[in-house]
Amino acid sequence: MSDLASIYLDNAATTPMDEKVLEVMLPYYKNNYGNPSSVHSHGRNAREALEKARKKIASLLNASPGEIVFTSGGTEADNMAICGAISTFGIEHIITSPLEHHAVLHVAEQVAKEKNIRLSLLECDAEGNLNLDQLALLLEKEPNSLVSLMHGNNEIGNLNDIERIAALCNKHGSYFHSDTVQTMGHYPIDLKSLPIHALSGSAHKFHGPKGVGFIYINKNKKINPLILGGGQERNNRGGTENIAGIIAMAKALELAYNNQASHAQEILQLKVYFKEKIEKAIPGVTFNGLSGNLDKSLYTVLNVSFPPSENNQGMLLFHLDLEGISVSGGSACSSGARLGSHVLNALQTDPSRENVRFSFSRFNNKAEIDHVVKTLAGLYQA
Amino acid sequence: MSDLASIYLDNAATTPMDEKVLEVMLPYYKNNYGNPSSVHSHGRNAREALEKARKKIASLLNASPGEIVFTSGGTEADNMAICGAISTFGIEHIITSPLEHHAVLHVAEQVAKEKNIRLSLLECDAEGNLNLDQLALLLEKEPNSLVSLMHGNNEIGNLNDIERIAALCNKHGSYFHSDTVQTMGHYPIDLKSLPIHALSGSAHKFHGPKGVGFIYINKNKKINPLILGGGQERNNRGGTENIAGIIAMAKALELAYNNQASHAQEILQLKVYFKEKIEKAIPGVTFNGLSGNLDKSLYTVLNVSFPPSENNQGMLLFHLDLEGISVSGGSACSSGARLGSHVLNALQTDPSRENVRFSFSRFNNKAEIDHVVKTLAGLYQA
Ligand SMILES: Cc1ncc(COP(=O)(O)O)c(C=O)c1O
Ligand SMILES: Cc1ncc(COP(=O)(O)O)c(C=O)c1O
Repeated sequence: MSDLASIYLDNAATTPMDEKVLEVMLPYYKNNYGNPSSVHSHGRNAREALEKARKKIASLLNASPGEIVFTSGGTEADNMAICGAISTFGIEHIITSPLEHHAVLHVAEQVAKEKNIRLSLLECDAEGNLNLDQLALLLEKEPNSLVSLMHGNNEIGNLNDIERIAALCNKHGSYFHSDTVQTMGHYPIDLKSLPIHALSGSAHKFHGPKGVGFIYINKNKKINPLILGGGQERNNRGGTENIAGIIAMAKALELAYNNQASHAQEILQLKVYFKEKIEKAIPGVTFNGLSGNLDKSLYTVLNVSFPPSENNQGMLLFHLDLEGISVSGGSACSSGARLGSHVLNALQTDPSRENVRFSFSRFNNKAEIDHVVKTLAGLYQA
Repeated sequence: MSDLASIYLDNAATTPMDEKVLEVMLPYYKNNYGNPSSVHSHGRNAREALEKARKKIASLLNASPGEIVFTSGGTEADNMAICGAISTFGIEHIITSPLEHHAVLHVAEQVAKEKNIRLSLLECDAEGNLNLDQLALLLEKEPNSLVSLMHGNNEIGNLNDIERIAALCNKHGSYFHSDTVQTMGHYPIDLKSLPIHALSGSAHKFHGPKGVGFIYINKNKKINPLILGGGQERNNRGGTENIAGIIAMAKALELAYNNQASHAQEILQLKVYFKEKIEKAIPGVTFNGLSGNLDKSLYTVLNVSFPPSENNQGMLLFHLDLEGISVSGGSACSSGARLGSHVLNALQTDPSRENVRFSFSRFNNKAEIDHVVKTLAGLYQA
């Protein structure tokens, strides 16, 4: 991956899978093909591996195995948290923010409409700081609310103060779900000390496979399932389990957390290096959201606002792509980068500037960053 | 897999993956790791493969690519069909049967309760034949119904007459979903000639991986999504796609249909061979549902009812498992085989008899069947 002809700086969209992860999944595509719901030896082998994966993930987050439910990804986990909390606790008010991922926002809007429930979007400033005083007031007025606020923002990297949000929710007895898809595996999460009720993870954001994730559901705040079927996942999620994917995810999370501090250090250094170089190379560059603030943003994300330029207006991603550099305009999930990002729109960024999200992983290196900055400098000189 | 120390005759629960299927998925776990929603080259490679897989599946079923939506499996597809049809068309009556898979039954019951909708379960006789005259009457009375009736039953193998059911539904303008999880890849399905509105498939039932499936949704009867997120699957199903799994599924379905007739022939021969041998070996053996009727049941399934026996009562599966023979009591998904099968219960089978589902694939052979029958004969002699 250090081939400069193809540079991948879109790790917030998805990450390359770790080779060690592929290794552990292969046996489950070969001889260990049993259905974990079967009671015979083929089934028991699969069941054992499934429960070992659950235990591993639980222990990495300091949770109980019964609190981990496997899903098809972060989106399903987010949908399940929101639909489940509302139907289980008869909640009639959802509080979220305009900066959330569509996997939260769209389902919140839909459920609010369908069930005639109120939906409050927290105010935020031009940097994407949420108004948590407003949250406190809303919860005081209406304690039986569902709060869904993400940990790290996938576009601008903002880290929300989930400790404070969790404390507020607990004070009022409100349900707190956090979309931790961007921080899972990248930041330590200790669920014995963090009083959160549900959180979402997705394997492909921490060098595992796409199409598998999990939801943590606090054992004292169980919620109804989203998908019903043959009683899998202790009746929390129907469907034959993606065994190979689940085993891969557990391995990926283990690799991530066993070396979390050193990965964080390495990747932060890359981000700092990139930030300093780009500021020097292209005068007028600024950073969207809090992504330029090293303490308050994901070390994996730098969202750069480029000064107006005739050559590049609307064409910067295209030019970079021609040079073999993969980066993103908004989130990968809102595929139409051209439609604009709902997150940057909420921050009311200057439409004459070009915004690019650079996102890093432990598989990137300084040589790649040198090359990208050089390429960008060229595009802005031309 | 022809090692007689471990014999797998539980292919209705899940099938071993074909080696050729694993081969095509590996590149998507290695270098082709892009997110198909990303617009850069990494993303476009993934997108191209995704759309090629969709096209392949569509063409094998004589459908349009836009009618295929990828899901996390058969269970999600069933849930989506039922919830989606009801919310989209304002349907207030669901017609299904007590013999359906829990992925249909449980969601139908849940939605009926939640939305205060009527639920009719068709009558069936002791062989599991559905009363289709009753269906005709129900539809006449209430055309705006959702009918969900499976193609092949996963426990007793009964093949429903979906052509007749489809014709009835179309006559009355009712929505028809069929759970085709057990027949997909095993029976030809031509969606240009079969007027069905939605059907469900699951890769792991036709030698693909677990945790990936699809729903066919007729383009004139589009339904609301079950999972909302970043606009994937043309806004029909949110969530980053399980690319490797989807590519594997397309390959598995291609392998299945390219050799469908010869696979069917081979497997049917195994079933016939097994049936004849077991009838001779153990007097008093009968067959549950229609599984003994070669024309009216899946060629993959034989559900055997063994005469009462002190030694084996409640222990037959256990004894077979000790001998390395993997078979099933009910469906794998209702893991507690001990709780009894809701399908066999609906047929009011004799509780003093022991029921075992044997299910075959093209990876089984006669030597395995000889060995299984010999083992069973031993258990019934002792
Ligand atoms: C008839 C039938 N429907 C639905 C399912 C569920 O599909 P999946 O295993 O992909 O969740 C199964 C098998 O488990 C089945 O046999
Ligand atoms: C913050 C956030 N939430 C949810 C998701 C959705 O997860 P998945 O890609 O597993 O569907 C993503 C990424 O796509 C994300 O970045």
